[in-house]
Amino acid sequence: MDHRGVGNDIESHECPGTEGGAMERNGSDVSDMREPLLLRKRTKNTTSQIAIVGANICPIESLDYEIVENDLFKQDWRSRRKVQIYQYIVLKWTLALLIGLGTGLVGFFNNLAVENIAGFKLLLTSDLMLVKRYYMAFFAFAGCNLVLAAIAAAVCAYIAPAAAGSGIPEVKAYLNGVDAHSILARIIGSIFGVSAGFVLGKEGPMVHTGACIASILGQGGSRKYHLTWTWLRYFKNDRDRRDLITCGAAAGVAAAFRAPVGGVLFALEEAASWWRSSLLWRTFFTTAVVAVVLRTLIEYCQSGKCGLFGKGGLIMFDISSTVISYSTPDLLVVLILGVTGGIFGGLFNFLLNKILRVYSIINEEGMIFQEGSAVQDSADDGYIAGDLVLRVRLPWFARCTPCPAGLKEQCPTIGRSGNFKNFQCPPGHYNDLASLFLNTNDDAIRNLFSGNTDNEFRISTLLIFFTAVYLLGLFTYGIAVPSGLFIPVILAGASYGRIFGTLLGSVSDLDAGLFALLGAASFLGGTMRMTVSVCVILLELTNDLLMLPLVMLVLLVSKTVADSFNKGVYDQIVTMKGLPYMEAHAEPYMRHLVAGDVKVGNIMHGLRLTGHHGFPVVDEPPYTDAPELCGLVLRSHLLVLLKGKKFTKERVATGVSQVSRNFGAFDFAKAGSGKGSSSRTWRSRRRMEMYVDLHPITNTSPYTVVETMSLAKAAVLFRELGLRHLCVVPKTPGPPVVGILTRHDFMPEHILGLFPHFKPRKWS
Amino acid sequence: MDHRGVGNDIESHECPGTEGGAMERNGSDVSDMREPLLLRKRTKNTTSQIAIVGANICPIESLDYEIVENDLFKQDWRSRRKVQIYQYIVLKWTLALLIGLGTGLVGFFNNLAVENIAGFKLLLTSDLMLVKRYYMAFFAFAGCNLVLAAIAAAVCAYIAPAAAGSGIPEVKAYLNGVDAHSILARIIGSIFGVSAGFVLGKEGPMVHTGACIASILGQGGSRKYHLTWTWLRYFKNDRDRRDLITCGAAAGVAAAFRAPVGGVLFALEEAASWWRSSLLWRTFFTTAVVAVVLRTLIEYCQSGKCGLFGKGGLIMFDISSTVISYSTPDLLVVLILGVTGGIFGGLFNFLLNKILRVYSIINEEGMIFQEGSAVQDSADDGYIAGDLVLRVRLPWFARCTPCPAGLKEQCPTIGRSGNFKNFQCPPGHYNDLASLFLNTNDDAIRNLFSGNTDNEFRISTLLIFFTAVYLLGLFTYGIAVPSGLFIPVILAGASYGRIFGTLLGSVSDLDAGLFALLGAASFLGGTMRMTVSVCVILLELTNDLLMLPLVMLVLLVSKTVADSFNKGVYDQIVTMKGLPYMEAHAEPYMRHLVAGDVKVGNIMHGLRLTGHHGFPVVDEPPYTDAPELCGLVLRSHLLVLLKGKKFTKERVATGVSQVSRNFGAFDFAKAGSGKGSSSRTWRSRRRMEMYVDLHPITNTSPYTVVETMSLAKAAVLFRELGLRHLCVVPKTPGPPVVGILTRHDFMPEHILGLFPHFKPRKWS
Repeated sequence: MDHRGVGNDIESHECPGTEGGAMERNGSDVSDMREPLLLRKRTKNTTSQIAIVGANICPIESLDYEIVENDLFKQDWRSRRKVQIYQYIVLKWTLALLIGLGTGLVGFFNNLAVENIAGFKLLLTSDLMLVKRYYMAFFAFAGCNLVLAAIAAAVCAYIAPAAAGSGIPEVKAYLNGVDAHSILARIIGSIFGVSAGFVLGKEGPMVHTGACIASILGQGGSRKYHLTWTWLRYFKNDRDRRDLITCGAAAGVAAAFRAPVGGVLFALEEAASWWRSSLLWRTFFTTAVVAVVLRTLIEYCQSGKCGLFGKGGLIMFDISSTVISYSTPDLLVVLILGVTGGIFGGLFNFLLNKILRVYSIINEEGMIFQEGSAVQDSADDGYIAGDLVLRVRLPWFARCTPCPAGLKEQCPTIGRSGNFKNFQCPPGHYNDLASLFLNTNDDAIRNLFSGNTDNEFRISTLLIFFTAVYLLGLFTYGIAVPSGLFIPVILAGASYGRIFGTLLGSVSDLDAGLFALLGAASFLGGTMRMTVSVCVILLELTNDLLMLPLVMLVLLVSKTVADSFNKGVYDQIVTMKGLPYMEAHAEPYMRHLVAGDVKVGNIMHGLRLTGHHGFPVVDEPPYTDAPELCGLVLRSHLLVLLKGKKFTKERVATGVSQVSRNFGAFDFAKAGSGKGSSSRTWRSRRRMEMYVDLHPITNTSPYTVVETMSLAKAAVLFRELGLRHLCVVPKTPGPPVVGILTRHDFMPEHILGLFPHFKPRKWS
Repeated sequence: MDHRGVGNDIESHECPGTEGGAMERNGSDVSDMREPLLLRKRTKNTTSQIAIVGANICPIESLDYEIVENDLFKQDWRSRRKVQIYQYIVLKWTLALLIGLGTGLVGFFNNLAVENIAGFKLLLTSDLMLVKRYYMAFFAFAGCNLVLAAIAAAVCAYIAPAAAGSGIPEVKAYLNGVDAHSILARIIGSIFGVSAGFVLGKEGPMVHTGACIASILGQGGSRKYHLTWTWLRYFKNDRDRRDLITCGAAAGVAAAFRAPVGGVLFALEEAASWWRSSLLWRTFFTTAVVAVVLRTLIEYCQSGKCGLFGKGGLIMFDISSTVISYSTPDLLVVLILGVTGGIFGGLFNFLLNKILRVYSIINEEGMIFQEGSAVQDSADDGYIAGDLVLRVRLPWFARCTPCPAGLKEQCPTIGRSGNFKNFQCPPGHYNDLASLFLNTNDDAIRNLFSGNTDNEFRISTLLIFFTAVYLLGLFTYGIAVPSGLFIPVILAGASYGRIFGTLLGSVSDLDAGLFALLGAASFLGGTMRMTVSVCVILLELTNDLLMLPLVMLVLLVSKTVADSFNKGVYDQIVTMKGLPYMEAHAEPYMRHLVAGDVKVGNIMHGLRLTGHHGFPVVDEPPYTDAPELCGLVLRSHLLVLLKGKKFTKERVATGVSQVSRNFGAFDFAKAGSGKGSSSRTWRSRRRMEMYVDLHPITNTSPYTVVETMSLAKAAVLFRELGLRHLCVVPKTPGPPVVGILTRHDFMPEHILGLFPHFKPRKWS
């Protein structure tokens, strides 16, 4: 469309919006200067530089900024830009819809599969128990578990190692979005892991799945399969990619807990640093879609068309039927519960940290001797065996309890779910330990939360269960199965709460089931350190609004107590993995590293010398009167430009249009995601002496701070805007850039915090 | 403590943490330069400049930045600072607790008073009706309403005009926090206004009350009454004051709707631009306290100790008993409901805008003829009379309906609240219009939301009520009574939903009460344009989790539809009042306006010349080699410094300690709030030629942008960090500051958005 030579001919129609600003600040007219790109930079900011630079190739920054600008300053924009922005908006909402639909469907099928597989296993076992074929029951149960666990581990280990891999490579692979294998593996792994009855939750994998769906949709599938779409080029920048992934993560939580508002708040509370109102609304839309999808499918299943799945509605642990009233002594008891819950939660984090370190050392040693997976496998086998023994052998030693009289519920339970598992007991009796152990996690939680059942679980039973679940929860997180932490923590917390309630039953009038809920809240507060989101998730899980004030109190107390010991579990894992939280550099040698037009050799040298992802671009005389900051260029974009091998012998400005001729819309897009290109590909003495123009790929609106800015305030800027690079400019005249604040690693820590399933494995 | 002369003697113990950084960037040692303050500015950012400047006087920026820094970079800090930060943290949470307690108590007493006053009025009227004394009943009702309305208006008009005043002066007075009168007036006005049965809600006044309580607590009461406390000096900056007010606003919503999580989200969604995780947690704590206070007091009242108040628990409109099931046709119906609800909501905003403009014109004309209040009073009288006629005369013409058979509820209703008001009907019949009109707003909403009552309200009745409420809601907002918009919108929406449900009863199986809820949601989405917070507030109001997916859908649809017409109601009012959204200046004359040490006359000139609130401080030779940006100074701080009259004949650096000797901790604190000091107080030829050192009150860590930064990105920075001033620095060497981005007015628009009660009145 627009055409510009390599030379110095300015074609004024190309940037009509910017001509009016072509006056230098000091008043001298520079329009006769023969540098088109310099001319542009002199604009008076009537139009965003992003737009100009990215008009023909993909935008190197989000169009979201444009919308804000348009909204705020009501300026006229070129019609081409207008169309682009409308495309962007339409696509943004379409993607949100698709993410919601996709995640909702995956969540539903996950549920469906788990309920059917685990249900079949448990029914088979309990049927065998009923006819007194104890050994057969044991072997059936053990066999099922082994097969399921093996499938779960095998899927992760062989089909897509990334699905159970360590943090950084996993999320990197994932942000690139090509790992369709990995999602499948993760979902299948999660289904079988949960079905095997391990102490793990499906919310971790679901969050990851949601994020993966978002990422894949944002990329338009993989280029490998030619599934791209040019509109999607708008989403090839940090900001939009992050927004999509936030939506996906929220959808994941919404699908796992059937808690749409909780999902929004989870994403919000974990990602609060880059939150915007518009994103809130989009996330809300996504989770609403998830809720409608789930609701519709569950409605469909309630007529019995989905096998064993379909009992219960949208609310997972409905306890709204319990009558609630509490007084001042109850409040005191609840406060104590919060304090001890906080201590246990902090301890959980501490122990998890230790255990993950041990796993990590085992794996590292294994790697040295080339038998990492063998070591891990044996650890996994040990875990599976331990779990099995606990689940089937322990209930054997529990005493049988006669069924209480006057129950609405059947006793002993018929079917697979209920408070009164018969196990090996004579008719009219039930085994309370079996009711907890030989159930899916969801059913166990339901049993613990159930109201008017103060004496159904003996205190010794609860103590055994609590200890087992607390320890298993710690160890499960390290094995090779995708796992979440919410469900284990809720399980442990609920049993702890029941113990507490039983012990203090004389002081407080609260129902034991409500104590279980409060115990779960205290553990969640103590480990996750989230408040509003956990509160809403619990509310949506239990449909018990009247408990809200108490749940809020418990969460606050336990979070405060636990915060005085250590950091939240996600933060800890991030730290343990050595993922960089945020580091500050202001290295003087970067001052002259990259200049407006530079020798190829210099760039290569610079790229090899440092691991930084962004470089300031500085224009020097004779292009300008004095050195000045032109903008910021990303490492990955530099690499693409170098690969294109379009160099010139002279130092001339290339122009955007030429770049767009030489490079497709997706070359920079792909690069923006940090994938691929490394600098080792080619070297040639001759080329090293040639020049390349960086202007077309330079972001001319980088955020900056003055060198005397307090580091703390710079950190706030970094976090609250969700930045990746921050140029440090001097206070006094001199070199235009004195340093750059950047992240070492490609991923901001918040996204990592969103995915609670990082393994200490070193697959990569 | 630390002592520094006016001269040039450096006492190194005063800033030990900064000495290591006393090397210039270019390597030359400047420690022998005899300017202590310049020395400080050369630090390598190991400690925040905020701390150094503000160590002895009040901090000119929030200590919150310090906490972040400490947390992030784990540096050692001086013990004095440590103590200060601990004091700050302790105080922060104490204030949050007190805000919660205060707002909870006010909310409770508000409720108590309204229920008792309105209840008495309604009981009296219905008793008189029962014995057929129609005229007496009419006059009793009319008399009560007139008295109540008169009290409400009088309180606002005479005791504290600010309580019903126009936007800017009100919020200004309020941010200064001395208007204890204003709160009382607002609360009393709101109580009587609601009791009089006007179509207005108590949430607007409650939000304002919460914010006022927060503001007053943050100021430690008023200095007028010597109620200050030195610790509170930490909260005398924009950031902390804003945080406190956010907590207060959240507490207000929580108290008005008994919806703690909804309160947090309301504050979040309206204030999302400066949201931080730590603030989320603090707000959550505040609303939890509110919830516990309310819960405890309501529990106490349920034994009948609070007069007519005490029925019903924490949930205002509990409809959880309704059985819910819906299918695909229902979804379609709900979508249509959302679309039309969005249209009505947008229309409401449009009409409200027009009406407020008319009110405004009336008032302005009244002002010209010195009879503003008379004009307003007659408008108010007209409104009150109209309301009365609607409420008492209209039901007279409604047909009596025979009581349906087989009800659990009593028919006709005995007492003051219920679905079946007898009014003038024979025994065994009820008047459905009276059931809606002759009730408190809360009871009317409860009647509309009630389930299994599909045929209780005739469609003509609902139409009359809808029209009346829609129009009254529009007009009420303009009269001289503090009022909220939520309740009118819910009322109108609920009646609209019921009409819709009755009309489409054949297509959809949903209960008419549920349609009322969905209608309310659609109106809220259409006017308020909030999603998550409205959703959670409705959930907490009705305790109906199963409706969540539908409510979410309706909200999304209606917000989208309405957004295509106009802006949200709060945004509109802000715009209408001409409150500045955000304006950008980069005025070149400011370049040399203020220098490191300046003549008093120059400052006076600068202050008179412009209305800006911040000025860049520039150090020039001979203090430095070249002009450099030293920092930013606030207009209000400048005025205090000038008032102190500590000038020197020579250009010397004063030092922080001297400033702290000359000024008390609260001089700058008070000034920071923008109150008081004007530049007219004194003028003297001799003084005009003297010098003053600005360093001690300069914020040396201002946020900056490079001049080529796109305005859109600068706006994002402004919004997301909640800034007030942004220095524009040049890209090339030259003057160190080329401009400053600032807000014209003292209030960010978000805080305005938080308070839905601005009147178009011009009291000030």
